[in-house]
Amino acid sequence: MAPPKYLTGDKAAINEFIDKFDTFLFDCDGVLWSGDHVFDGVPETILMLKARGKRTVFVTNNSTKSRQEYLKKLAGLQIPCELEDVFGSSYSAAVYISRILKLPPGKNKVFAIGEAGIEAELTAEGIPCIGGPDEKFRRDITPEDFAGLADGTLLDPEVGVVLCGLDYHINYLKLSTALHYLRRGAVFLATNVDSTLPMHHSFFMGAGSCSIPLQYASNQTPLALGKPSQAMMDAVEGKFQLDRAKTCMIGDRLNTDIKFGVEGNLGGTLHVLSGVHQKEDWEKEDAVAVPAYYADKLSDLKIIA
Amino acid sequence: MAPPKYLTGDKAAINEFIDKFDTFLFDCDGVLWSGDHVFDGVPETILMLKARGKRTVFVTNNSTKSRQEYLKKLAGLQIPCELEDVFGSSYSAAVYISRILKLPPGKNKVFAIGEAGIEAELTAEGIPCIGGPDEKFRRDITPEDFAGLADGTLLDPEVGVVLCGLDYHINYLKLSTALHYLRRGAVFLATNVDSTLPMHHSFFMGAGSCSIPLQYASNQTPLALGKPSQAMMDAVEGKFQLDRAKTCMIGDRLNTDIKFGVEGNLGGTLHVLSGVHQKEDWEKEDAVAVPAYYADKLSDLKIIA
Repeated sequence: MAPPKYLTGDKAAINEFIDKFDTFLFDCDGVLWSGDHVFDGVPETILMLKARGKRTVFVTNNSTKSRQEYLKKLAGLQIPCELEDVFGSSYSAAVYISRILKLPPGKNKVFAIGEAGIEAELTAEGIPCIGGPDEKFRRDITPEDFAGLADGTLLDPEVGVVLCGLDYHINYLKLSTALHYLRRGAVFLATNVDSTLPMHHSFFMGAGSCSIPLQYASNQTPLALGKPSQAMMDAVEGKFQLDRAKTCMIGDRLNTDIKFGVEGNLGGTLHVLSGVHQKEDWEKEDAVAVPAYYADKLSDLKIIA
Repeated sequence: MAPPKYLTGDKAAINEFIDKFDTFLFDCDGVLWSGDHVFDGVPETILMLKARGKRTVFVTNNSTKSRQEYLKKLAGLQIPCELEDVFGSSYSAAVYISRILKLPPGKNKVFAIGEAGIEAELTAEGIPCIGGPDEKFRRDITPEDFAGLADGTLLDPEVGVVLCGLDYHINYLKLSTALHYLRRGAVFLATNVDSTLPMHHSFFMGAGSCSIPLQYASNQTPLALGKPSQAMMDAVEGKFQLDRAKTCMIGDRLNTDIKFGVEGNLGGTLHVLSGVHQKEDWEKEDAVAVPAYYADKLSDLKIIA
């Protein structure tokens, strides 16, 4: 396989790269911003791509925010975007549940572990949901909970899915409740299973930290609906009617973004060095994925505008 | 290997079995009791063994209770026992830290995830401990926590060990704090890594559910100090000066109790069918361990008293 082509500073190569695609899928954290700090030149780069007639879609594994909340964040950072251009892992999960799983009535509720974003996206797709940010589950487990979960009296018989995303309020009660639904046959889904969450130039617990205890205790593996899951790619393709050959994924992580694009048979992948992974990561013998292009940062595409 | 010898109802075999050993190590849950319900005839069986001059030691992976609290539970269920006869995974971890790890001054604190039992055992061994049941960590994570953990200002520079046991108050703040200590080089220990906790004839989240998110996020595997870890066997042997050839482990789980005895080269292992695993579990091709003896229940040993 050819090594990735380096675009930074090479006007001709950048022009050729941009001309090759009609749609760009962007990872957000590490590409557009770090935390609440937007990288220099990012809004102008997106504007330039739009001016050249490109579709720009923001594909994020962050499950805590709904598309509406993401739109607010993008707008606040002056990044041009519409609601339809945002594709998050909670939305991906909601679409999967409503359009692929198609649960029978009487077994179509979701028990969610996660923040408001999950609940908002499920509700928007018309999927009944319990758990999530509900204060009723943000407390210590009691002896009555142990008894009622074990005998099932505290379980909702209509729950057919356990969906796990990142939950800053994860606790023993939520995990035990989810475990009991899984033991009764609920389908096990995860918005994403990222092991870590980059913040403040450090790493915190990722969404996977909420699903892996359940995986360990139930001996079941969740179907993950965020990058690099091709279930997410299928959902993106279905929604935007995109031509994969003319689509490029841009990201900073090989194991999520670049793998997502490579396994999705997109026309291209662009790795930017402003986030988690660096050149040495794909130069390793056992690299999880290798991009087709790379650049120091996203705004390097802008020099020829 | 010979199949396990069935003892129930066979007076001669039972007598021979008892005569063969001078020390019996008992798992508790599933052998002596289920939850708070003691099995019929258990106190009398222990008394009979003591009357025949046997040493009885209670070896449990439950990390939430200290030995003192365990003693209370045993006494409340009329099971004859002294403090010295109780060996729990929190005690095992405390002994390991104080006598094997021997941390240098200035780096000898433990950040604990777990209940009061862990803190009590560490304190009894003279090991400084933070976290554990401290109310300060039983709350939601804040933006200040994210910043202070990332830059280290909220971390205690004297912490040299992260010790994980079962914590009914597990939360994102505790996990994130532990992750940051691990990223700064703390030794990663677990009292035990049981995936589930049997309660009310069902299964809840075991101690492993508190350590596995850290394992996943840090890419480090904890040294587990409960059964079947031989670190626990070494500690038991050291404390009781036992002759392994004349010691028998009695339990209801192949992957913890029986494996613990087999790998510890004990003179024997007795599996009782009153708990988690059944005959078909050791008859499988890939059985994790096979006992030397089995009986329907512990009190079947009593008929010849």
